[in-house]
Amino acid sequence: MFINTKQSIGVCGRNSENPYGRINTNEPRYPSVFSDLTRKEMTGLLEYLYSSKELNLTRFRNATIRSNYLYLAEMFMPSKTAVLNYIDDGYSKPPREAHVVLIRGGDPKPNVLEIVVGPLPFPNGHRLFPYRQQPIPFFQRPFTSVESISQKLKEHIDKEFGRPLYELYGGNLINCGNKCLDVGLFAEVPISKNDEKSFAWYSFNQNSEHKLLRPVDFSVYVEINFKMLKILKIWFNGRLFQNWKQVWDYYLRNKRRIKKTRFPEESDNISLSMHRRGQPPFSKPLRNPSQISPDGKRYNIKGRQVTYMFWKFDISMSIFTGPRLFDIRFNGQRIAYEISIQELTSFYSGYKPMEHYFNFFDVRLLLGLQSKYLEPGVDCPIDATYIGSYFVDRGSDVPIYNARSFCVFELNTETPLRRHHSKSSHRFYEGMVSVVLIVRTIITAGNYDYIIDYIFYQTGGIEVKVSASGVIIATYHGRQNPYSFEISENLMGLIHQHLYHFKVDMDIKGRNNRFETLDIENDVVASNEKPNSKINQIKFERKLKATEKQAAYKHNFQQPKLLVISNNNIKDRFGNTPGYRILNTGLTHNIRPQRTGNEPGISWSNYQVAITKRKESEPVSSSIYQHTNPEQPIVRFQDFIDDDENIVDKDIVAWITMGFYHIPTKEDLPMTHTPGTVQSFFLLPFNYFDENPAMSSRNAIRIDPIDVKGETKSVKVERYGVRKENACKPPKNYNDKVIKDDPCLVVQCL
Amino acid sequence: MFINTKQSIGVCGRNSENPYGRINTNEPRYPSVFSDLTRKEMTGLLEYLYSSKELNLTRFRNATIRSNYLYLAEMFMPSKTAVLNYIDDGYSKPPREAHVVLIRGGDPKPNVLEIVVGPLPFPNGHRLFPYRQQPIPFFQRPFTSVESISQKLKEHIDKEFGRPLYELYGGNLINCGNKCLDVGLFAEVPISKNDEKSFAWYSFNQNSEHKLLRPVDFSVYVEINFKMLKILKIWFNGRLFQNWKQVWDYYLRNKRRIKKTRFPEESDNISLSMHRRGQPPFSKPLRNPSQISPDGKRYNIKGRQVTYMFWKFDISMSIFTGPRLFDIRFNGQRIAYEISIQELTSFYSGYKPMEHYFNFFDVRLLLGLQSKYLEPGVDCPIDATYIGSYFVDRGSDVPIYNARSFCVFELNTETPLRRHHSKSSHRFYEGMVSVVLIVRTIITAGNYDYIIDYIFYQTGGIEVKVSASGVIIATYHGRQNPYSFEISENLMGLIHQHLYHFKVDMDIKGRNNRFETLDIENDVVASNEKPNSKINQIKFERKLKATEKQAAYKHNFQQPKLLVISNNNIKDRFGNTPGYRILNTGLTHNIRPQRTGNEPGISWSNYQVAITKRKESEPVSSSIYQHTNPEQPIVRFQDFIDDDENIVDKDIVAWITMGFYHIPTKEDLPMTHTPGTVQSFFLLPFNYFDENPAMSSRNAIRIDPIDVKGETKSVKVERYGVRKENACKPPKNYNDKVIKDDPCLVVQCL
Repeated sequence: MFINTKQSIGVCGRNSENPYGRINTNEPRYPSVFSDLTRKEMTGLLEYLYSSKELNLTRFRNATIRSNYLYLAEMFMPSKTAVLNYIDDGYSKPPREAHVVLIRGGDPKPNVLEIVVGPLPFPNGHRLFPYRQQPIPFFQRPFTSVESISQKLKEHIDKEFGRPLYELYGGNLINCGNKCLDVGLFAEVPISKNDEKSFAWYSFNQNSEHKLLRPVDFSVYVEINFKMLKILKIWFNGRLFQNWKQVWDYYLRNKRRIKKTRFPEESDNISLSMHRRGQPPFSKPLRNPSQISPDGKRYNIKGRQVTYMFWKFDISMSIFTGPRLFDIRFNGQRIAYEISIQELTSFYSGYKPMEHYFNFFDVRLLLGLQSKYLEPGVDCPIDATYIGSYFVDRGSDVPIYNARSFCVFELNTETPLRRHHSKSSHRFYEGMVSVVLIVRTIITAGNYDYIIDYIFYQTGGIEVKVSASGVIIATYHGRQNPYSFEISENLMGLIHQHLYHFKVDMDIKGRNNRFETLDIENDVVASNEKPNSKINQIKFERKLKATEKQAAYKHNFQQPKLLVISNNNIKDRFGNTPGYRILNTGLTHNIRPQRTGNEPGISWSNYQVAITKRKESEPVSSSIYQHTNPEQPIVRFQDFIDDDENIVDKDIVAWITMGFYHIPTKEDLPMTHTPGTVQSFFLLPFNYFDENPAMSSRNAIRIDPIDVKGETKSVKVERYGVRKENACKPPKNYNDKVIKDDPCLVVQCL
Repeated sequence: MFINTKQSIGVCGRNSENPYGRINTNEPRYPSVFSDLTRKEMTGLLEYLYSSKELNLTRFRNATIRSNYLYLAEMFMPSKTAVLNYIDDGYSKPPREAHVVLIRGGDPKPNVLEIVVGPLPFPNGHRLFPYRQQPIPFFQRPFTSVESISQKLKEHIDKEFGRPLYELYGGNLINCGNKCLDVGLFAEVPISKNDEKSFAWYSFNQNSEHKLLRPVDFSVYVEINFKMLKILKIWFNGRLFQNWKQVWDYYLRNKRRIKKTRFPEESDNISLSMHRRGQPPFSKPLRNPSQISPDGKRYNIKGRQVTYMFWKFDISMSIFTGPRLFDIRFNGQRIAYEISIQELTSFYSGYKPMEHYFNFFDVRLLLGLQSKYLEPGVDCPIDATYIGSYFVDRGSDVPIYNARSFCVFELNTETPLRRHHSKSSHRFYEGMVSVVLIVRTIITAGNYDYIIDYIFYQTGGIEVKVSASGVIIATYHGRQNPYSFEISENLMGLIHQHLYHFKVDMDIKGRNNRFETLDIENDVVASNEKPNSKINQIKFERKLKATEKQAAYKHNFQQPKLLVISNNNIKDRFGNTPGYRILNTGLTHNIRPQRTGNEPGISWSNYQVAITKRKESEPVSSSIYQHTNPEQPIVRFQDFIDDDENIVDKDIVAWITMGFYHIPTKEDLPMTHTPGTVQSFFLLPFNYFDENPAMSSRNAIRIDPIDVKGETKSVKVERYGVRKENACKPPKNYNDKVIKDDPCLVVQCL
């Protein structure tokens, strides 16, 4: 068969005006009620804040610990009632306001204050942020570069113990050229409730790529009294010391026996680095398969509102909690008001004192800020749409911009959405492939990269998926231990647990919903065929959960059940109530005992799903302060449940926990790869539609036999008008040019 | 920016000699030790069988119940020792032999016999199949069309009760034109151990697409004495009757009150059919995105051996158990000797007597036979490679051919395999997208379609994934019940449980391996920072499982653990043993009580993972006979465990159970769609490699800043020689022409 390879051919989707790799700022001209702050609003906000005598703010660049300064700001969400009155019932639009966090070291009694400023873009006043007890004690303040003691600490240690460190680890703490020892990890020890004093462990690493994989066996426990520091303990070569004298004595006595860790040379730097090495799987460089869209992008993005087939929703990037969706509708009907991350934690364990404090609450890092760049062809398909986000962050007198914080794309999963091959009395084939829309953000929370996908199926189902990649936290114990394997020379990867928390504010055909479980139970029936004999089969029992405590679901593997949220005010002609099922396939059990350590700050992790009555005063399950006062965290999720309110036919919220335990192995070097780390939960229609809504798609194929006189002569192939040829040429990829011209899109520019 | 859309452009992958949709029989010229029977071998086998006086076989078309006839044949697997001696150590190739099942109604004492015939292609003798007690009692024989009583039954019922059925349900059982009532489901009632007698329920449906969704409330319980039948009970309009007189009396008394079910007209047939309807999601027909391979297929298939990057394995289609893989290697090292399906069951429950017996063991349907056709663009990507399989099946005097039983393809998942955005002291971006190789089969087991994927990751990980689609089994109870929802007029979908069983014969650097769990436990340590205070963290404990009973893993959600198979004879320089981790994300708990009903036939379902010593005599965990004698199934998996052999540093096999409970809802009409049905298990390297082997790929991207005099001027983008443009044109799609010319590829030809 001959194919003319020279024929002229169009560019896929006639996208020539939008070649790959171009940046689409896509900022809405007029903010919707769900929009993040626009540049204009941010400018107005900053003007108001810095001109307010009452607030008395110092610009970040001039701030000291004794100053009042701006920590961050984001859109303040109006009440759900106000929003729905506006978008559903035509009432006036709620005013645009900002939620602002101020660090107030300049106050007579220093504190942290959260305020609401409005109306934007030209504010005329502010009030306290209503959903939190104010002010927040100063000792719980977020840590900023204003308070950084790293440089001072390095200078201090260099004086006290610089020479031995150089002799053992081949690098210096200061004036170090390309052989530097640097702070690797910093772990707050949350035992102080003193506004001025804090305590932290600092570990040290050889600053060679990737420094987290180059730890040295030296760390210090520091009391910090504002920028003054005092070293309280020193961990060195597997031992804990109380002062430098002890360390020196030990060092001088054991000098020759202490293991040296050579500073890696450029030439051997490859082994733990993120550079390609070894024999490649193909003898020549071959391109990956990739996706083309012959009819172009089949979704629309207007401002921050995405429309795709029957789906419509707004996307937003909270500076605190990262990517979130609002007003998620299918065929015009709202299914959820909000789906958002609440917290991502990773808690490590180890043998060394500081490893007991590697408990990272990543909201403290500001999840929204941490999605800076998505690389076409790696992080998202090359023809995805990239969306940027503006932020008001400490130190930014002008709004800062992450040009690729979201990507939106269609994905042909190459798996059937449905298919049946009917071979008996009706002979036909029918099926369609599952093509989904994905909204993706990748959050780099320090060492770990979390790939967050919101996935929209044509069945009306939604999947929320988290995959983990990035660099492990490593140490060296010098002996077998129950926390790690030795995975490279002087390197052990610490056991840890990832926990993710999500908020899902379902609205099934209105705000008032109920929560039931359908419990699968054994059912014994009499046999009709064999007298006096019993048959075991299964049945389901619907169990309405009347209160928040009843609805706090702790998974029991031995009792299978389906979790359903439904609207009991609406019945179909058969008496069914429309619902959605929550399927959590990322279940994890938190084995840490309750009411100890950080548990009160992650009390949500005791429930795989919890349903509470929605309250404006319970907007989020975590905060940027969680770790600082473990016994009494600023947000205690358990409180949402403990008042045990009635949740029958009320506006309810599902809180969903996922996670997994990770014991790093050699395959986690130099990075954790995603296979085996993927966790999802699904929202699946449950008697919500009268039949599967995907039956309306034209992208199905049906094949029927053509029989003539009782003999099958051919087949009829029905494609519902969709062309079967996909011949088109992908548009040109401009990404490399874009980032070479504007490197700050990717890297932190010097 | 201007793009020349007229430029000439090559066909993707220079694949013009292999346009989409062409059939590649790909039968090996010389069978490997893992090859399914070739046509030549089948021909030789059939000649031997039909010429053997001792076997005395009747051709299927002439067979009666009193005949000896061929049921099926497939390749007889030589012992693992013989195979490994051959492929690893250069010993001679084991002879090619066939495993044959004969139904022997002609014997003085009728029976079923399984024999081994060889050597192929010119057999000279046969012996008993060694791994089963022989002969198999005749009452456990598979059911074939030789014994079908459907026509006789319909004639019988038509005479007894045809008129009322027509009046109520609008169709006839015989001479029915296009308004037929037909047998819908057939459920064996396994209470007879008499060779001649069997018992079964037959339900009836309006034979309109899809008939399973058109049940009528009429079924009969039949005693079958060879082809003679006796109706023992009749279910009609919600009541059970003992004879026709009772049915008639009831009918005549209640005639007017009995609910009629109109026979669907062509015109309203659309509502439960697999035809497109409703408002489409796009106003115009738009093509799906689809995948192109600019450098062509990057895998090789030679005979049945697939090579892809570092992967190499053989594929095979067992007529009993469907798609399986042998000798799975990564970079030359065998990781598993076999990965195969063992059983797919679906057990239903309901209110009506016959619904207690909807217990389907799908191996009985011959899973391998049931993958007939894969549609490009729905079941697999359009540029997948399609592989056919030949079978010796009842009634086939010549080998029968399913031209598309497998597809093999690369898939760009458009999700990072790894990525890290390093923003601190080392500023760089590095990542690569996850491209996998998938071997797919779709098994239509009656009403359900199971999509079976073997997925190969570049990390050395393997995923085995089952997705379910197809038509639900429906009934009408006429009242609220704990088994179903009413989902359409007179239609309820029955609750059921899907269970899948897999065999994974791991060989980690040799045959002798061990199984350990790494149990995650609470760990209490003293605080160094706060005197007299304790810190709760986690640790892991390695627990070696010494025997089969210890290694029969029942999941306990409250005790998280990792499951690892490793080779203790090999240690790396740190003392680690190479291993693979089994991660089962398709966990399901079987709530049915043990030792009742069919439980002994699926005793594997009590373990989410079980590890046994590998024995030639325990090749499979199920059989085509399981359902016929529930108390004493032909294969009782529990026996594999009960001898409780030592499994430390032995050749061991992992048996993995997945599944889920399904309560059908309106969204299961007209078909179950795959989202929410997907179950996977993973085999993940665990200290097997010294670092992640994906680091050798050239398909990664790394971006580093270019700093000049302390200022970031640009970035360097490293693509390791892989071109970034993907401009090429997909080859032409010939599939429709192929199937129009040869309709029997798709439909069962008349």
